[in-house]
This record gives sequence, structure tokens and C-alpha cells, in this order.
Amino acid sequence: MAGAEGERPASPAQEGKKGEAASPQQAKPAAPEAKKEGITRIPSIPVATRPTDDLEFLEIRDLRSQLKPQDSPFMATNNAGAGFVGDSDLVRISIMNYESGDSSGSHRDFAAKNSAALYDPAKNQAIPLPDFALRSGPRKTIYHNPKDVVAAIVTCGGLCPGLNDVVQNIVFSLCDYGVPEDQIFGIRYGLRGFLDRHAKPVQLSRAAVDGIQLKGGTVLGTSRGNAKMPAIVERLRLWGINQLYVIGGNGGNAAAHAISKECAAQGVVCNVVGVPKSIDNDIQLIDRCFGFDTSVEEAQRSLISARVEARSSGGISIVKLMGRQSGFIAMNASMASGVVDVCLIPEIPFDLDKLCDFVKSIMDRKDHCVVCVAEGAGQDIMDSSGPKGTDASGNPILQDIGVFLRDVFRQRFKGVDIKYIDPSYMIRSIPTITTDRIYCKVLGQGAVHGAFAGYTDFTVGLVNTHYVFLPTTTIIQFARTVDPKGRQWNRLKTAINQPDLM
Amino acid sequence: MAGAEGERPASPAQEGKKGEAASPQQAKPAAPEAKKEGITRIPSIPVATRPTDDLEFLEIRDLRSQLKPQDSPFMATNNAGAGFVGDSDLVRISIMNYESGDSSGSHRDFAAKNSAALYDPAKNQAIPLPDFALRSGPRKTIYHNPKDVVAAIVTCGGLCPGLNDVVQNIVFSLCDYGVPEDQIFGIRYGLRGFLDRHAKPVQLSRAAVDGIQLKGGTVLGTSRGNAKMPAIVERLRLWGINQLYVIGGNGGNAAAHAISKECAAQGVVCNVVGVPKSIDNDIQLIDRCFGFDTSVEEAQRSLISARVEARSSGGISIVKLMGRQSGFIAMNASMASGVVDVCLIPEIPFDLDKLCDFVKSIMDRKDHCVVCVAEGAGQDIMDSSGPKGTDASGNPILQDIGVFLRDVFRQRFKGVDIKYIDPSYMIRSIPTITTDRIYCKVLGQGAVHGAFAGYTDFTVGLVNTHYVFLPTTTIIQFARTVDPKGRQWNRLKTAINQPDLM
Amino acid sequence: MAGAEGERPASPAQEGKKGEAASPQQAKPAAPEAKKEGITRIPSIPVATRPTDDLEFLEIRDLRSQLKPQDSPFMATNNAGAGFVGDSDLVRISIMNYESGDSSGSHRDFAAKNSAALYDPAKNQAIPLPDFALRSGPRKTIYHNPKDVVAAIVTCGGLCPGLNDVVQNIVFSLCDYGVPEDQIFGIRYGLRGFLDRHAKPVQLSRAAVDGIQLKGGTVLGTSRGNAKMPAIVERLRLWGINQLYVIGGNGGNAAAHAISKECAAQGVVCNVVGVPKSIDNDIQLIDRCFGFDTSVEEAQRSLISARVEARSSGGISIVKLMGRQSGFIAMNASMASGVVDVCLIPEIPFDLDKLCDFVKSIMDRKDHCVVCVAEGAGQDIMDSSGPKGTDASGNPILQDIGVFLRDVFRQRFKGVDIKYIDPSYMIRSIPTITTDRIYCKVLGQGAVHGAFAGYTDFTVGLVNTHYVFLPTTTIIQFARTVDPKGRQWNRLKTAINQPDLM
Amino acid sequence: MAGAEGERPASPAQEGKKGEAASPQQAKPAAPEAKKEGITRIPSIPVATRPTDDLEFLEIRDLRSQLKPQDSPFMATNNAGAGFVGDSDLVRISIMNYESGDSSGSHRDFAAKNSAALYDPAKNQAIPLPDFALRSGPRKTIYHNPKDVVAAIVTCGGLCPGLNDVVQNIVFSLCDYGVPEDQIFGIRYGLRGFLDRHAKPVQLSRAAVDGIQLKGGTVLGTSRGNAKMPAIVERLRLWGINQLYVIGGNGGNAAAHAISKECAAQGVVCNVVGVPKSIDNDIQLIDRCFGFDTSVEEAQRSLISARVEARSSGGISIVKLMGRQSGFIAMNASMASGVVDVCLIPEIPFDLDKLCDFVKSIMDRKDHCVVCVAEGAGQDIMDSSGPKGTDASGNPILQDIGVFLRDVFRQRFKGVDIKYIDPSYMIRSIPTITTDRIYCKVLGQGAVHGAFAGYTDFTVGLVNTHYVFLPTTTIIQFARTVDPKGRQWNRLKTAINQPDLM
Repeated sequence: MAGAEGERPASPAQEGKKGEAASPQQAKPAAPEAKKEGITRIPSIPVATRPTDDLEFLEIRDLRSQLKPQDSPFMATNNAGAGFVGDSDLVRISIMNYESGDSSGSHRDFAAKNSAALYDPAKNQAIPLPDFALRSGPRKTIYHNPKDVVAAIVTCGGLCPGLNDVVQNIVFSLCDYGVPEDQIFGIRYGLRGFLDRHAKPVQLSRAAVDGIQLKGGTVLGTSRGNAKMPAIVERLRLWGINQLYVIGGNGGNAAAHAISKECAAQGVVCNVVGVPKSIDNDIQLIDRCFGFDTSVEEAQRSLISARVEARSSGGISIVKLMGRQSGFIAMNASMASGVVDVCLIPEIPFDLDKLCDFVKSIMDRKDHCVVCVAEGAGQDIMDSSGPKGTDASGNPILQDIGVFLRDVFRQRFKGVDIKYIDPSYMIRSIPTITTDRIYCKVLGQGAVHGAFAGYTDFTVGLVNTHYVFLPTTTIIQFARTVDPKGRQWNRLKTAINQPDLM
Repeated sequence: MAGAEGERPASPAQEGKKGEAASPQQAKPAAPEAKKEGITRIPSIPVATRPTDDLEFLEIRDLRSQLKPQDSPFMATNNAGAGFVGDSDLVRISIMNYESGDSSGSHRDFAAKNSAALYDPAKNQAIPLPDFALRSGPRKTIYHNPKDVVAAIVTCGGLCPGLNDVVQNIVFSLCDYGVPEDQIFGIRYGLRGFLDRHAKPVQLSRAAVDGIQLKGGTVLGTSRGNAKMPAIVERLRLWGINQLYVIGGNGGNAAAHAISKECAAQGVVCNVVGVPKSIDNDIQLIDRCFGFDTSVEEAQRSLISARVEARSSGGISIVKLMGRQSGFIAMNASMASGVVDVCLIPEIPFDLDKLCDFVKSIMDRKDHCVVCVAEGAGQDIMDSSGPKGTDASGNPILQDIGVFLRDVFRQRFKGVDIKYIDPSYMIRSIPTITTDRIYCKVLGQGAVHGAFAGYTDFTVGLVNTHYVFLPTTTIIQFARTVDPKGRQWNRLKTAINQPDLM
Repeated sequence: MAGAEGERPASPAQEGKKGEAASPQQAKPAAPEAKKEGITRIPSIPVATRPTDDLEFLEIRDLRSQLKPQDSPFMATNNAGAGFVGDSDLVRISIMNYESGDSSGSHRDFAAKNSAALYDPAKNQAIPLPDFALRSGPRKTIYHNPKDVVAAIVTCGGLCPGLNDVVQNIVFSLCDYGVPEDQIFGIRYGLRGFLDRHAKPVQLSRAAVDGIQLKGGTVLGTSRGNAKMPAIVERLRLWGINQLYVIGGNGGNAAAHAISKECAAQGVVCNVVGVPKSIDNDIQLIDRCFGFDTSVEEAQRSLISARVEARSSGGISIVKLMGRQSGFIAMNASMASGVVDVCLIPEIPFDLDKLCDFVKSIMDRKDHCVVCVAEGAGQDIMDSSGPKGTDASGNPILQDIGVFLRDVFRQRFKGVDIKYIDPSYMIRSIPTITTDRIYCKVLGQGAVHGAFAGYTDFTVGLVNTHYVFLPTTTIIQFARTVDPKGRQWNRLKTAINQPDLM
Repeated sequence: MAGAEGERPASPAQEGKKGEAASPQQAKPAAPEAKKEGITRIPSIPVATRPTDDLEFLEIRDLRSQLKPQDSPFMATNNAGAGFVGDSDLVRISIMNYESGDSSGSHRDFAAKNSAALYDPAKNQAIPLPDFALRSGPRKTIYHNPKDVVAAIVTCGGLCPGLNDVVQNIVFSLCDYGVPEDQIFGIRYGLRGFLDRHAKPVQLSRAAVDGIQLKGGTVLGTSRGNAKMPAIVERLRLWGINQLYVIGGNGGNAAAHAISKECAAQGVVCNVVGVPKSIDNDIQLIDRCFGFDTSVEEAQRSLISARVEARSSGGISIVKLMGRQSGFIAMNASMASGVVDVCLIPEIPFDLDKLCDFVKSIMDRKDHCVVCVAEGAGQDIMDSSGPKGTDASGNPILQDIGVFLRDVFRQRFKGVDIKYIDPSYMIRSIPTITTDRIYCKVLGQGAVHGAFAGYTDFTVGLVNTHYVFLPTTTIIQFARTVDPKGRQWNRLKTAINQPDLM
């Protein structure tokens, strides 16, 4: 069994039995499998019921039975006067109440019952969820003596603005709880840092992370690729790590989930916390991924450059943006820039001839054209001679739609200047703008609050503007995608008069 | 009578009878005054009940009975394939479900019943609301023939990033519906443009608003100050305006509400739509005001400059930021910047001696100090010799806390370099960053969708990440304020170790 | 014979007889061919002698004998109180006076005599120039009646920040002289706009160019490629154009020179003025090309991104920057960024093995490496299977050194993450920073002053911080290159400890 | 005795005897006092003559007779292949050769003889200089054994972008020469750091200055105010400092000069090197001061904000920029921004009524107006009730022209919105743009090269695009000012149609 970054484990949806270490406290009321009448849940989505009022919520595993409860160090000041988050404060996940299944967007919610849902893009179906999630935040009772905590932080996968912000704020929060600075470690270059003799973990003090938010990238280093769970857990035991923070994408979270299972199997008591990172913004349930606002801001600059180039030569500019399965960056950057004529995303198939006809009509009308394409778009239209299989991370290798379109346009629009721009590395590597900076701060704090509360195998995220804890398994089921029938895509189509190209 | 920008009308809470023109369609089910047991509503908050399931929502007045229903022009393409928003699609306003009244933040919601609430900062009490609001978006049935629409747009009050974005997108949306370009007008310099012979309305075509989002400020011009409702409505009648878009703050929305009442009184059939603008971000119910992200981003720059100055001279820098009643910009910019040592906001009183002691302790420790102060902070500690009363807009004239602190510090910290920075005008006037740009687009579109749906006396806003229509009266009741016991303020306090200064 | 953009004419150095229309006034003193003893001039560099003191300067052709002198319209106010530039004010070209031929940089000046020089990189030899150039600026006497001027502006070649600034200021200056706004034209898409029926010239008024400096690119459009001089001059005659402004690179200036010769041949009286544009900054004699500061500023951003990527993955990042024959942007951006480990420019050949060894030593030492490479570097080391010949503009087609290095590194550094960044289009297309903005303003004004002074076949430029007129032929002789033995390259080598790689 | 920052010493012009420690080598040929016929020099400007050809140049004092010559450590690699700068390489200071005294700008040069000159704004007269200055750069022979060097760096006066860049590159260069890292010190908070027990010098290693160029301000701290030369020199002796680098303005350079004299008097062998810093750009002879490009870039932003504010309210915006005696920032930022209607600088007096009339004419024409005023402008028109005398630094205390104009305009333009913006601290504190970054690098290197060459009492600067050493006394004679009759001011006046306001 595995679960390295990207190497997607057999879908947790098929995992079978749930909640092997579910909190006895929560489990007690013996939640009936489906409180809401007529709703069938999938087993890998853990559900619990609040005893006081039978409200159902996404259950978070905890290690409380193996840990010793004690007062939060913030009790003295009543958490600086602000009180604490109740251990069963709940945040509602789905808040739409549709008039009918006709309403725009309703097919992606569990509209029949106006219930929360997870959306499976492959089957185009909504999978019911309980209505609530546990609220993130500091608890009155904590389950680690801060003096005994040994924490490790690791960043996995591709770069995304905000990695350093999250690392910094996990460190700050650990220090706020009173974890000694020499008991906080950074694992180098992703999961391989657990095993690579040439890249030993580094100590992370307040001083060590001071100012890192102004630098892009990750000071810890990152990587993709395989990692053997048993070996990693062996290191956790060896190094005495009892809190592990994994900042990563789908792969990273799958790995975190696998590590927490392996810990349970090996009897290693370690809270494993994920902070979901995806520059593609393709993580289910949460309002947005950190770094997304920053990425769209920067992506927009390249679109504006593309327009300048196109306009100055009477030509066509193509900009390829990030988005393997989901076109959020392409869609939002196109929307914000106001200069894009055609936007192509993985969720919306297109016909090459229709695309060229549409581009031609734009050229006829205004003598220049800007095409924004997400990297995962149009994979089906490229000939099958390109690379196959998956990369080291288990992600399917994409063919280069940007270069493909450039070559197609050069052939079909003879004499027209075709320019191709790929700004991806310049977007991924910049420091955060303030919305993301604040978001990352709170995510980092929430991760630490959750670990001290004894939770494991969970991630933190913003849901309907509130911070929650989510079971790691829920966010790795399916990638979040742009809804082709949704309002946002429709707003863009209307704005640029883009017809169906299929 | 009344309702000019800033000149707050006698609180609508006392207005008495509600819903004089409530949609008969919605009124039918004769909503019991308080569906939720034990909840008393205030009269100026209009509530209706969805017939199908008795869900209560914030009612929007409409003029449908005086208008003629017809198919949306977007029906042909099924709104570009995305369908429509149901006329009674509902968005849940409050989504927290607290464990108990102990939970952080619960006192500002109507926690006893876990119900939605409006918060009255003066009385420190939560006022119950219905649980839902109407979803914003395009309707299948519209109530204006686009060819007959004469629309006017006006911007009121102080500058805020995004004004041009909103204006542009109202124009674009009107054009998308098919309103002739020569029937769209911009009123110059705020409400006085209705009456000022030297500042005639300008025609707003697609071409006229092309590119204005790249300029800060408002191309229409703006102003504060009084306006006579009857005279304004007289102009609406005279000019045949049947859709009026008011982009403004508390004062602007109060004026919009007064205009819509005056229209009813004079029998002028005109949909009055507000787009709430407040650089202070102090508008109730909505997730954030447009321009806020941009303002925080820019405000942060001045904080960083302040730190550079303080550090280089071993001195104290004071930065005054916007925030008359609410410290959101100061709080968030302080949070994001990571360089602020003391943050003072209107919501949190402080004692001058305690402040100076705290500043001294910082100077002793690290030889420089950065103070971020919202303009409305500390009004009570300044002597009463300053200006009194209200300005032209009816806003209380604030004394200058920035200059006051500068002078106090100069006296108390002899020989220490004290620098004072007021970046306000440079923040207000910049173009939007992309998060705000997209937000403004959707607000502008929503305003137009609502007007075509026949609604009046309403505003559009983002509530829990969904766009809704809100009765104008609800958002002008009270200013939104930072919760001194809330998580966000607490996060900042913890981050900078700021004690209670009272 | 031709002279289109890029299609370099047979080097003007071989052109033979000079000064076919030299000003009689200047020609009078019958300048001895080589005033300075022992110096041999090349014929295509026109030299004249100031009668009052026998100082030699670069002669500018004029059309004064065919035009009618009159007072400048600025005479009335004495040019706003600032007076005028003397018709034979001279600016010294070379200002170094070396101790000996040993001194750094001396081999590129005509050191033997401490005389001004043009440097021929192919032969590595300095070609003597007269010591002075004519000062640019407004003259008391002008040779066109502004009311009769018909002016055309054309932009040629690749994009460069500042094109719009120059266009704007030529228009503003023409208007200041009193040229009617409907007699100023912009030629579309480079020289082909003279002949293309689908791209008619546009009228350029003050209003038309208002704000264009805030947009990147060129509002006129641009192109590369052939143009037939006789046909173009035919258009000049047909359209009555008597002032032609050509903003372009080596090719554009060669074309301008050819046009002015063709005008003379056809008897068309038209002042042809060049404004030298080269984003590579490879134009001889002038301090820098407009847009260069802006380009370096933006290029630096991509280098910083490259470092973030390299550091985060423990890999190698390659950034390819503009610079076909000259590495100025690569050198200066590397210098400014402080993050580059290896800088490769066309002027300095390198051995692939030595490069790889050096990169390896860097990787061993610090686990990441940033390589900055100018596009023209290392052309000799790539195999000869790539594209051959010249592009439409006559420029040799370069093989892609960036992709080549990426592939080589991937082979030689197995398992190391290699990232390749090409930011060129995003650099070319941005608006100017203020240093370039001001520079462009003055260039635009100088071009117009020179045309009104009756000069033709000249360009304007900054020489030793002073604005001068230069004969077009002088700047198209050879490209300016980085001096491998010069101080600036040496400073960079020292800063990054880069050894000789040959 | 004097020489503190700002506390201008009795003008060095009256200092009397020169060159007490002039290099014997240079002194030998016994330079006749005035080589150029008819030119009278002032005694505080030291002149020497190059033996080989009698060329006159600005003499630099040296301590060579007290030091031991040795080969440069860069000899081994021939300075990385670039060779060295000849010890008597000369750079020509004045390069204009006017037709006559009528030519624009000629009155500020020593036009009668087309000779180099220093300009005295008080007497409006040009003071002749020798034609050349010594070229900056590394020498083959150095006069310190790097292992024995103890270096100190101090930053004085107000902030200016680039201070950290210069500090960093002095440190880097010292390290390049082989100075041990523990022998390089930073003096804290300006000259008072020599004497303040609470602000001990800090050690400056490569690591310590890594990345500081990305922060604004000065990591060393700075201050204004008095310092006692004998006490400072006592510290130099005590601490064994034999190279002192003073980065400061007129005051700082005056102090450096005084220190070097005091060293001579006390027999302390220490090379004192100045790096001229003035955000006002008011230093004679050099092309520009470091940080100037950055400041203009940032200043422009506030002008654009000012225009947005003015336009949006139909009002008047006033922006006050730096410039105590010289209006360079105001002039260049106005020029670059293209949005300024009135520009007021210290060099050009104005009449308040005429100003108001002109502003009124602008308001009548376009309903808004932007006024850019340098802080030193209009001091004569404000009533005499303001502060008097000089500040701690000896600079005359300026009255606040910005506030004054705001109040005057409020009175004279009733009902018009008047906004006042003072962005100074936000300009001073930002990091450099690349042009300044590179400039600072070379200045820092040049300072170190000069010290190792044995020179003292000198500064480095860019003259006609070449780096030179200048005697400190020459640059502290008079502030450089904008020429009211010069081309640059005239270009701005023409661009904005600003009449004479006197």
C-alpha cells in the first residue's frame, strides 16, 4: 500500500470500513448510517452525529484515547479574551436551497434533498454528505503537553504561492502553544526528505522562518514522487515525531492519509495533519485553495502581455496557464483581464475546426485574438503520438496543448503572427498577495489547533467563509472542476461571446 | 424626506409598517410574523415565506404588478447553456451551529436558536433574521422590455477601488440584455448630478466604459452631501429613467431607499438598485465589500514602509488607515504585513498611558515600533477642543488620531524619531486587483439581473460565497464592526502579543 | 537594393560617396578628410568641420536648400524662456583619456589618439570618428511652415517598451509646433502599412494618443519583413508626406536610410528621421536604447522566479532572455538580480563540457543553480541540424539555446529537476518605467526638432547624457556588443565567480 | 570645528590651502595654477596635471606615502581577464561645446572657454574646473594588505533607496579583496554610532548583508545631527579602522571631509571615502544620485493617485514631494506622469495670486487640477510666523508649503474639494529598481577600489556615464539645482503649458 504524492491510492471511496479510530465520545450516539431519509452515503466518508441534537457532521478521527487531556495554555487569558471554539461547533457545508432541479448549479449539489454533496465529475453525480463539518479553532482542552511535542513539517508537490506562509505560521503557532523551538523540524524536498541522507531535516525556529513569507517557493524544498509509507512511519517513530504537518496536493493528502493509517497499524501515536495545496484550485468542498488569488493576479499579467503582442502585430497570442483537470485559473484570469477572446479549459471539450473558425471570425472582426488555454484542455484532440503514461508522481503526462495550438494556428493562419506564452513558473514562484497571506496564516494556525485537539487524518479549509476541519479522505475523492453549466463559466462565456465549440 | 449620502435617516428600524409594495405572489402564503418560535423580528426587516416549504427569507420589494412579464432574451440559448436562477432559490444566511453560547463569536449570531442575525454594535445585541436570502442571478422571466429601459448610474461618497469596474459591468450587462446604448446614462458627481446644470449626465456606451477598470476612482465623479429626494425623483420622471443604479455607502444606500420610497409616493415606476460600497468594509451581512482586498493589499505597503522608517532611525512610525467605525482594513493589513507592533481600531478602546507603556516596552525590546491606527480609533481620548458636529455628508467629524498620537509620542519619547504616514488617498484611488475585479463584475451583473426581475429597493452582495439580493433596509441598520471577542481580532492580538490597553 | 527591417543592406561602410546633399553651409570649409593626424575615416561616416574652430563633427544631411527658412514659433516666448540650441552646438562623443592601451576598455576606443570611435565587433577594431556630434534640440530657424507639414509615423520590428511613448511625443511635439492634427498620420503594421490596402494609415491627434503610454506595445502595430523603397517613396509623394518618422531597429534605420536616399533620387522632399529602437540595446554610440531600463527591470523578475524554482526543488533553472548578438539584458538583469550563477551571452563563447562542469560544481556546493542565457549565445555549439538561413526580416534564424541547454542538462544531470523559462514576450510588452518614459519623451521631441531644422537621414540619441543628432548610417554599421574585457562584464564575473568557460 | 551631517561647514570654498597630503607622484610636475588661459580657480578645488600630456584633472588626496604598495590580488587573473584601470586614466567632465553663450544651458557651463564648471546657484555663476577627473576602478597596485584592513561603514542622514545596496556591495568588494569578514564593521545610526554605548558597531559578513538589497532603508540605521570629529577620529584609532566609508548627503560628505582632515591632524592613517547620497538629487557634477530613478518611479504613483482623486471629485489635488533646494524629483515625476497641471520647485519663485489664477483657469477648462510641489518651493511666500532656524542637522527648517497651499486653495476655491498628499516616507523607504541597484553596486565597488588605491577624502560618482573619483570638497560646495533656463524644465513647462507665475 502506498499513497505518495500524486500516486493516487485506490480511490478511498472503495476503502471499505471507516473510522477505525473514531473518537469514542462521538461514536457513542451510534449514528444511524443515514439520518437523512433516502440518502445513501459512501463508506469512505465518515459521518458522526452531534448527541445534543442529532445533527450529522463529517467525522474527524482522533487519538484522544491515546493522549492525555489538559488545559490549553491559552486558558489563562481566555484565549486573549476571545474564548474558544466549541468542540462540537458545526459549520454548514451546503447552504443553497434550490427552487427546483432546474436552477443553475443545482445538479452539482444534492438538490433532491437540498443537502450537502461531494461532486464526482467523472460520473457527473453528486454524492451526499452530512450537512455539517467541525469548526476549526483552538480548544479549551488540548491533548498534547506542548513541551513534549516534536513536530515535523513537509511540503510536497509543485510550487504554489503561500507555501512559506503556511510553514511560517505552523511554526509560529507551535511556538505560541509552547513547543520548544528545537523540537520543530522541516523535512527537506518533500517526502523523500524522510529518507534521503543528503537532505537532513532542518530545525525551524521563529527566527528561521522570519521573513520567509516575502520569498516565493518553499524554504523546505519540495519534490514529487514515490515514498514508502512504512519507511516514513519508521522515521516518525525513530525521530519521536508526534505531530506531522503535510502541505500538499491531492497526492500529498493521499500520502498523509496513508501515513496516518500506517501509524495506526504500527502503533505510532502521531497526529497527521494536511494543509491542502493546489494551484489548480481543484480541491473539493473548500472555498478556494491558498495561493489561488495570487496566481490569478499574476496570470492576468501574462494575458495582458498577450493582448499587447497580438494587437501590435495583428496576430494571435496563446497563453497556457496551469490547470490539469480544472480550469479555474484560466477562467478567472480570463474574466479578470477582460482581454481574452477564447478560453479553453479541461472541463469543456472543443472541436479543433470549430475553434479555428471561431478564431477566424475574431480575426476578421478585430484583427487580433487572445487565446487562454489551461494545460489540461484539449488532451483528446491531440494525436496519440505524444508521451503516455504517468510521471513520477503518478499524474498522467499531459501533451502540450499550447505548443499544439501554436502549430495548428501557424498552419491554418498563414502569414499571421502567432505568439505562445507559458508563464507557469513565473506564477507559481511569487510571494502571496495579502488575501492569500492572511488565509495561509489561519490555515497554519488551524492545523496546529487541530493537532493539539487530538485530531488526526484531517485537513483544514475554508468552507462558506468559515474555517473547518475535514477528514482527509473527503478531499481526495475527486478533483473539483469548473461546472460547465455553472454561473461563473457562463459569466465568462457571455462576457466574451464564446459559443459552444463542440 | 431625507436620505442623502451619509445623512442617516431616522433608523429604518423605527420605520413602522413594512412591505407596502410586497410582491403579491410572495405575500400570499401570509407568512406568520415569526415562524421560528420565540423570535421577535424588527419591522423594518421584511420577511417572506416560501410557499412550497415555509422557509423564511429576506423579502425584496418588487414592481412586478406595474410591469409586464416577458421571456428573458437569454432564454433562446438557455442562458448560454447554464440555465437560470430560480425565482425562489434561497441562500442560507447563517451557517454556524454553535455548541453553546460559550463558543467564540456566538454572541454576534442569534445563538440561542442558531439563527441568522444582524448585529447591533451599539447595544451589543444580535437581531434575528430569517434564515435565507433570495439568490441573485438571471431570471427566465423579466419585467422590462430591454428596448424601453432607460437606465442611470450614479456613484456616491468617497472613492473606493472598484467603482469603475462596477459601472463598467452594469453597462455591459444592460447591453447584453439589449438596452440601447443611448439609453444608458451616468450621473455626474454623485446625487448632485441630478440637479447641477453644470454637470449634465453623460451617455455610457460599451466604448465609453472600455478600459475604465484600469483607472482608479470613478469616471462619473462622486460627491458627498445633501440631496432632495422629491427633486431627484422629479428628474427620474422627467428623464424617463426606469432603472436607477446607486453605487454608494451607508449614505448612498439610505438615499437609494429614500428614492425608492419617494418613487412609490409619486407613482414613478423605477427600479432602484444599490451596490454597497464601503472601503471600511463595514456593511452588515455581506462577506466583504468590493475594493476591500485591493485596499488591504495597498495598505500593507505603507505599513512596510513604516517599518523601514522606524527600523532605520530606531524610531516610531504611525500609519493611519481608513476605518471610521470599523477597523477591518487596519486589522487585516496589520495581519498581512507582519510588521505591526500595535494596532488600534475604533471597536477597541484604549488608555493613552497604557498605550505609551506598551510602546515603550517595545522600544526597549527592539528599538523601533510600528503603530497602525484606524482613523476612527481613540476618538474618546482626544480633548474636546477639536472640530464638532457632522460634515456635509452627515458623518461625524473625526478628530485626527494620527496627528494626535504623533504629538503625544513626540512629547513622551523625547529624542525618538516619530514618523507619521497617511496613505489614505493613495489607497482609495488605485485600480482593483483581480479578486475585486471579478467581484465587481458579478455585482454589476447581479444588479442588472435584479432590476430586470422587477425588484426594487434592494442591493446585491456576496453572502457565504453566494450572490444574493438583500433589502436595502437591512444593510443600512447598523455598521458592521470588528468583533473584539472574535477569532480574527484575536489572531492578530496573539500574533503581535498586544495586551488589552484599557 | 532595399533596406527593409532587418534585411541589412550591403554594409553602408562600402557605400562609397557620401554627403550627396550635405548642407552647403557646413560643407563650405571643405573639411580635410582626416583632420586628426594619422586617422583614416571610412567613407560612409560623414564628417564636417565647424568653421569657427575647425572642430570635426558627425555631419547630418539636410534639405535646407530645398526648404524655406523661417522663425520658430517658439521665438515669441524665447522658447518659454529657455532659449534655443545653437545650430552648431557640439557634444563630445568620446570622453575617455586613457593612460595607455593597457587600460581596461581602451581597445574599443580609438585609444592611440584618445579619439572617438565606432567599434567593429567582427574585426575587433575601433574605427575612428570625429570627436563631436551635433546637439539635438529646437532651433531658432525652422525650415517647414508647420501649417504645411504632413507627417507620418511608423513603428517597425519587434516590440519594445516605449514605442507608444515615442509615438505620443512625436505627435505632441508636432502639435506644439502648430502642425494641424489632421495632417499627422500613423502607418499601420510597420512599413507594409504603406502598401497594404487593408491597413490604412490612421489619423493621430492629441486625443488619439492620450494615455497610450500606459499601454504596452505599439498602437500603430508593427511588422518585420521586406518593403520596396520605390513604392514607399511613391506613397510619400502621393500622400504629400514631408516628414517621416521611423521608429525601428537596425533594419528600420537601414530602411529609413534607404528611403531618404530614394527620396533624393526621386526628388521627393521629405525629412526622414529615425528613432533607434532595440530591446537588445545593441545600437552603437548611444548611452542606451529606450525601453532597456524597463526590460532589465522586468527580466530581473523572471530570474528571481527561476531562483525560487531552483531552490525549492534542488534543481537547475534556465532563463532565456533577449539578445541576438549582444548580451546587455542578460548581463544587467543578472547583475541586478543577484541570483544568477551562470550568465551566457553571445559575445563570450563557451565550451559545453566546461559549462556542465561549472554547473555541477555549483550544484555540489549549494544544491541549486540559475543559468541566464541570452538567445544568441552558444549558437556555435548546437548541432547544425536546426533551422538555417534568415527569417522574413533577414535576421539569421537562431537555434533555441534555451531548449538545447534544458535537454543537455536533463541528460547530464539525471534526476535533477530542470526548469526552463522564456519570459521574452512578457518583457517586450510592458509599459515603460519612468526613466524610459522621460527618455522617450525627449527622443520624440528631438526627432521633431531635427525635422523642423531641415535635417534628414538622421536619428536622435543620448550620448554621454546629452541628446544629439547622429547620421543614420553611423548607427547601422555594426551592432554594439558587450566588451568581454570591459568593466561591466568583469563586474558580473567577479560577482558570481564565473570562470572562463572556453 | 564642525562637519556633522547637515551642519554645513564654513564653505570649503574659503578653506584656503589645498592638498596638504597630495600625492607626490602627481604633484611633481608642479601644475601651473591655471593651465587654461584666463581661468581663475578657487583654492578648495584641487587640481593636478598629468605629466605625460599636461592634462589637468581634479586631484585626489592619497595616503600612499604612509602605506606600502603591493600587487592587487586580482593581478593573478588579470582582473578576470578585464585588466585594470590606469592610475591616470582620465574622464572628461564637460563635454559640451557651445556655438555661443546664447545656447540653452551654456550659462551654467564655463562657456566662454567651453570648459568644465561647477555651478553656484546663489551667485548664478559657473566656476571653472579642470577638464578631467580620475577614472574610478581597480588598480594594479594597491596600498593596503587586505588582511590588515579594518573597515567601517556608516550611513548618515535621511533615507534614500539604495543605502542597503551600497552597504552590501562595499562588504562584497572588501571580501573580494580578501579582507577578513570579522574586520568589517557597520556603525549604527549614523555618526552617533561612533559614540553611543547603546548602539555598538555590528559585524558585517557576506551572510549578514545577503538579501538586504530587497529591504528598503538601511540595516545600519541612520541619524542626523552633530558629531564631534576629534571623538570620532579617536574611535577610529581605538578600533584600528583604516578604511572608513561614509554614505551620506551634503552633511555626510562634509563630515567625511572633516574626519579626513582630523585624521591628518591626529596622524591617524585612515582612508575616508564618501558615497554621495541625496534623494533630492542635488549633488553637483554627477549624472544622478543613487536612488533617484527609484524615487521618481514611486513619486509618479502618488501623482497618478492625485489625478484620480481630483478627477473623481472635480477638485484639486496637491502632492508634496521631496526637494529642499532642488526640484528634480518634482520635475521628473511630473514629466513622467503626464498628469500634472502645475509644478512648483524651489528654483522658480511664484506669486500666489498668479498661481491661483492659473489654477482657476485650469479648473474652468477641465474641472480638476493636480499640483505637484517640491517641499522647498515657495518658502518666501509663507508668512513669517512659522518655525525658524535650523534643525538638528543644520538644515533650515522649512515651512510646510503643502499644507499652506491646501489652506490657501480651500479659502480661494470655496466648495471645491482640495486633497493633500504627502508620500515622502513611502518613497524614501522602498527597495531600488534595477537601474539604481546596478548603480549602487558599482559605486560600492568603486569606493573600495579607491580606498585600496590609497586615496582618501574622495567620493565616487557617475560623470557622463563613466565612474570617477571626485575630491569630496568639490561636491559639497553648492547644491545642484534645476536650471530655470535649461532644457529639462523647459520641456516640462511646454508639456503642461505652465506660464511664468512670477
